[in-house]
Amino acid sequence: MNFYTRKLIKPEDLNARNTLFGGSLLRWIDEEAAIYTIIQLGTNKVVTKYMSEINFVSSARQGDIVELGIKATAFGRTSLTLACQVRNKITQNLILTIEKIVFVSVDDEGVPFPHGKTEITYSDERLREE
Amino acid sequence: MNFYTRKLIKPEDLNARNTLFGGSLLRWIDEEAAIYTIIQLGTNKVVTKYMSEINFVSSARQGDIVELGIKATAFGRTSLTLACQVRNKITQNLILTIEKIVFVSVDDEGVPFPHGKTEITYSDERLREE
Amino acid sequence: MNFYTRKLIKPEDLNARNTLFGGSLLRWIDEEAAIYTIIQLGTNKVVTKYMSEINFVSSARQGDIVELGIKATAFGRTSLTLACQVRNKITQNLILTIEKIVFVSVDDEGVPFPHGKTEITYSDERLREE
Amino acid sequence: MNFYTRKLIKPEDLNARNTLFGGSLLRWIDEEAAIYTIIQLGTNKVVTKYMSEINFVSSARQGDIVELGIKATAFGRTSLTLACQVRNKITQNLILTIEKIVFVSVDDEGVPFPHGKTEITYSDERLREE
Amino acid sequence: MNFYTRKLIKPEDLNARNTLFGGSLLRWIDEEAAIYTIIQLGTNKVVTKYMSEINFVSSARQGDIVELGIKATAFGRTSLTLACQVRNKITQNLILTIEKIVFVSVDDEGVPFPHGKTEITYSDERLREE
Amino acid sequence: MNFYTRKLIKPEDLNARNTLFGGSLLRWIDEEAAIYTIIQLGTNKVVTKYMSEINFVSSARQGDIVELGIKATAFGRTSLTLACQVRNKITQNLILTIEKIVFVSVDDEGVPFPHGKTEITYSDERLREE
Repeated sequence: MNFYTRKLIKPEDLNARNTLFGGSLLRWIDEEAAIYTIIQLGTNKVVTKYMSEINFVSSARQGDIVELGIKATAFGRTSLTLACQVRNKITQNLILTIEKIVFVSVDDEGVPFPHGKTEITYSDERLREE
Repeated sequence: MNFYTRKLIKPEDLNARNTLFGGSLLRWIDEEAAIYTIIQLGTNKVVTKYMSEINFVSSARQGDIVELGIKATAFGRTSLTLACQVRNKITQNLILTIEKIVFVSVDDEGVPFPHGKTEITYSDERLREE
Repeated sequence: MNFYTRKLIKPEDLNARNTLFGGSLLRWIDEEAAIYTIIQLGTNKVVTKYMSEINFVSSARQGDIVELGIKATAFGRTSLTLACQVRNKITQNLILTIEKIVFVSVDDEGVPFPHGKTEITYSDERLREE
Repeated sequence: MNFYTRKLIKPEDLNARNTLFGGSLLRWIDEEAAIYTIIQLGTNKVVTKYMSEINFVSSARQGDIVELGIKATAFGRTSLTLACQVRNKITQNLILTIEKIVFVSVDDEGVPFPHGKTEITYSDERLREE
Repeated sequence: MNFYTRKLIKPEDLNARNTLFGGSLLRWIDEEAAIYTIIQLGTNKVVTKYMSEINFVSSARQGDIVELGIKATAFGRTSLTLACQVRNKITQNLILTIEKIVFVSVDDEGVPFPHGKTEITYSDERLREE
Repeated sequence: MNFYTRKLIKPEDLNARNTLFGGSLLRWIDEEAAIYTIIQLGTNKVVTKYMSEINFVSSARQGDIVELGIKATAFGRTSLTLACQVRNKITQNLILTIEKIVFVSVDDEGVPFPHGKTEITYSDERLREE
């Protein structure tokens, strides 16, 4: 799993108890997974279709840095399946896991459309080796 | 299931394809579920612990109104389990379902703490009958 | 008056004194009133035209839940008049009242356009009885 | 009336019809009026207490610049009354007027507290003459 | 230099240390400079091209008011050069300076386009004298 | 230079011309640079002190992915100097460069404080090799 994106927890990300608002975290994950998918499939016509169960293992506080890890686990004809892990960048404590996030490639009307990819692409290699 | 909260989809809620950004929707759900939990348990010291799988059944567009439905399905000693449904307010098309969202009542250190509730409270009755 | 929408006050909603920022509250009200109007008139081509005087009766703090109540009070040929009340969901303390908010139905150029409605619609009945 | 603050309308400020969202405008006004009050009274312990009726005279679109004008009209023992006008910076078309916005100076518990000012202060003179 | 726009620092503007987030400040400056440029050049087809070095002289805290000053320093054929200063409105302490911000007037494809202006325009005079 | 963080350009990130708002980009850079600094110095008590000149080489549009690259270039006693590059993730077109961004480690009162680091730390190695 590659951890590319980091977030610094600022006051705007807090819930009423001053810990990381779960809704903000889910928003970050959906955006990061969309980005990963767009890069892999070479199109930004993609939609979130499914997420498997989400375990909020631990929380985080203002000033913490969280890092979001995404990994492609399966290529379908129109879909891409990802796994996701979020952890505290400094302590490496696990914050959240999602085993499956499924994105679907769609046409302009939102109908599933074959993406033609079957494996991790060059774009990702470059990303990892850099 | 009670549908209390409605959202009007504005440009700030859109993804790069100009449909409703999944991350915004998840953020709305987490906030609405937290509110429902706080009202039921009579404390705002609660944290999101778990979400079961999420099916993004259909999307929505700018100018659409979505309504968020929440229902309490089980009371644990420190937890509360909710079900969630999101649909288009006008067409009643289903947008998303989550069978289980689990919140946990915690003390000031974030340790699970018995909430002392075993059923839907008066506060909710009032809400429904008004 | 029906109280459908609830908001949980988070750090992003606070003013410099750490109480609820009045501007955030006004933003929530305008959105909720627009939603109510769109549902009643069956069109999202509506604009805020007028608000009568606003009394900020009491404030609210981080972690409080506020609920927004809206009621249709008069149907004009192109307009709809609403009343609004905001209160603390838990204590039921009144936070703010607005006696009249007027929305106008418009065409694509923004010119007032008859909406053809004369009373609270079915959509609202369903909402109340559910 | 002094027009100090200008806002450029960006996509994040639009309603579902792609014109300026009234709620955003009200938020800007409340912040600008608070700033004006803080400068006049020399304290940031102030709260919005009252707004007289609001006429939304015309709308605005993405790319327009609006300017917000505020003027102190009366000093009470604990209050300050302002008038507000919003107009399109380029065309000078009137967008909105509010005859009275009342702020109250408060102590740490939110109880009204005499501010000791009776007229426009030096700080404002400097602002106007610069 | 004219100081028109003021910002009240609220929790949403803070970094993880609870002082003013530098990124928010840069965002405010870019917007204010764009507004100034649009007013001077009479077109909103402008893009930020260059900023000279930025000195963050001092910080600011929640409840502080900062004021943003902008001055046109040079007119090119397609460009406009501005100077910027940010200071604490109450204490007049300097927060940040930028000697040169260059905006370029562009056509619909983003290609530089002569703006035809050679000096501070009437629009600005009105602004200063009001 | 390591490119860790990617951003998907959504409507909320656009200026009035529907291209990437420069202010949003600067905000992203300041946050990413702060994160990099916090990881290197092992403290989140850091402030942005200086940025050298910024060249906005090209723009970006809704649906584009931009990636932010940061590299530590010099360790001072209380400071850390970084270089930054932003480019389009897919086309690799350069969007912006900043040669020097200087952060300073501070104590609780904001006074510069020796950070005790002299080179890229283990934390970064792990990040690169993963």
